[in-house]
Amino acid sequence: MSMTVLLAAGDATRAAYRPALAEAFRTERLDVQLVTEAAPETVDYIIYGPGSPVEDFRPFTRTRAVLSLWAGVEKIVTNPTLTQPLARMVDPALTAGMVEYVCGHVLRYHLGLDRHLHARPGDWDPTPPPLAHEREVTVLGLGELGAACAHALVALGFRVRGWSRTRRDLPGILCHHGDEGLKNVLQSTEIIVTLLPHTEATEGLLDADRFTQMPPGTFLINPGRGALIDDDALLAALERGIIAGATLDVFREEPLPRDHPFWAHPAVTVTPHIAAATRADSAARVIARNIARVEAGKPLLHEVDRGRGY
Amino acid sequence: MSMTVLLAAGDATRAAYRPALAEAFRTERLDVQLVTEAAPETVDYIIYGPGSPVEDFRPFTRTRAVLSLWAGVEKIVTNPTLTQPLARMVDPALTAGMVEYVCGHVLRYHLGLDRHLHARPGDWDPTPPPLAHEREVTVLGLGELGAACAHALVALGFRVRGWSRTRRDLPGILCHHGDEGLKNVLQSTEIIVTLLPHTEATEGLLDADRFTQMPPGTFLINPGRGALIDDDALLAALERGIIAGATLDVFREEPLPRDHPFWAHPAVTVTPHIAAATRADSAARVIARNIARVEAGKPLLHEVDRGRGY
Repeated sequence: MSMTVLLAAGDATRAAYRPALAEAFRTERLDVQLVTEAAPETVDYIIYGPGSPVEDFRPFTRTRAVLSLWAGVEKIVTNPTLTQPLARMVDPALTAGMVEYVCGHVLRYHLGLDRHLHARPGDWDPTPPPLAHEREVTVLGLGELGAACAHALVALGFRVRGWSRTRRDLPGILCHHGDEGLKNVLQSTEIIVTLLPHTEATEGLLDADRFTQMPPGTFLINPGRGALIDDDALLAALERGIIAGATLDVFREEPLPRDHPFWAHPAVTVTPHIAAATRADSAARVIARNIARVEAGKPLLHEVDRGRGY
Repeated sequence: MSMTVLLAAGDATRAAYRPALAEAFRTERLDVQLVTEAAPETVDYIIYGPGSPVEDFRPFTRTRAVLSLWAGVEKIVTNPTLTQPLARMVDPALTAGMVEYVCGHVLRYHLGLDRHLHARPGDWDPTPPPLAHEREVTVLGLGELGAACAHALVALGFRVRGWSRTRRDLPGILCHHGDEGLKNVLQSTEIIVTLLPHTEATEGLLDADRFTQMPPGTFLINPGRGALIDDDALLAALERGIIAGATLDVFREEPLPRDHPFWAHPAVTVTPHIAAATRADSAARVIARNIARVEAGKPLLHEVDRGRGY
């Protein structure tokens, strides 16, 4: 029997995903009417993306699951009308892209690459950088993305420590957790990568106090969520030399407003939310497979825990 | 019985290596007189480094081996007075440093990182870069360093092809060889890493003809040897857009002269011969272990084949 799947997203996302989803449904042999408008009571599944017009989920009485196109679900998980099961996007291509972004920027800071990009004729100081096994990298957040990045950094030779709010154990990674654990890892870190979800508990996690706990000259890479960082505290930490360089991919407001001080700061690199870009082909396959699972009576993959918020 | 080991190198190298070598000989329980001058006929081993005063090896009649502090031996291997066994430096720290440099710069070009370092306020194009598995990287030279870099790039997800003058097979790497093989790999590459030794056969390997075989927009990373590249041909290829960016760590003359056009070219990054820096502690251990092997009657490790030149 044919299913009705509502693609609830803005114009740009709809244009990018329609052909990819149609192809993925064919591959999974799902008989789907993929629509962008429908009477709510006829909708079997909602694919939820940036710019979605759906705000009230109560009329979607037969909807069996809402499938997010994004890994971060903070904008939808707090919606009190949403009682249907909600799945986050866990896309192997998204994970791969994140690992490449994180490894690239960690190696950039590790090698002191910016200095060479701005070398003047005759600059010739053949002092080599330290080796990765002498470099302390801290990954805050040990979910799907944080764990993948931590393992890739270990493979490159870095000394990697992980931190999560609640205890996690990853093979080959020295894992810390909780407030005391955070204090410990921040005290001796050289490069910090923030890959936590945005929840009430992580809002402004890196604030003035936490920056004070870091050693001078720390590098910060945030491809996680803009709200993990207190922007003013970061700017103050840059002024004081606690943070020697920051690469930020996510912001409290996106696009980052043209007059935001991050743009002009010489030690801040702004990237336009590209680290964890969902790729339509790959994400469409993940969604089609998840719908096929539910139709076959199996549990939804990557279902969001409303209590934790991710 | 005590051995006499001559540290034949310039002042800076002597200062850096003396304490490291003394420590390494102690660790290997070798009874060594480490000297910087000696009657040639009393010398058991020569450690040969940058700025060496020794040019005529004929009077060193009892010298059992010459141990190079450098991986590249083109300056000594052609010396007709050298008949003693010669060992190249194969230092695990040198290999690690090279892998980090190559992965860092490949990821930099892959991610289009320079663009973000030079972003202007408001630049917000959230088009993500392709994934590593969509990117063709070619490693020219499959010795110790080339093989290590090729494997590290595969681990990061890149499509990696290797090329060597004579046939080599590496697990997980599509290997080509010879002139026809080189033409094949150059035709469809996106990022080229040159890690060949400098020999008669590799002198000016990347010349005007070979650049013509590459697709427009190719990136070049040369941490191998300066003489692998015809400088004028590279500058012409940059002008024509065949090479979109070049990162060069080694040059025909070092330090690179202040008026060399590479310095000022906006698409060329000059690094000051840091990719394969020999680290004194680690290299000293390698040399002490190799001397201990010979003293125990075992063959010298990493002995140079005079016919091939490396």
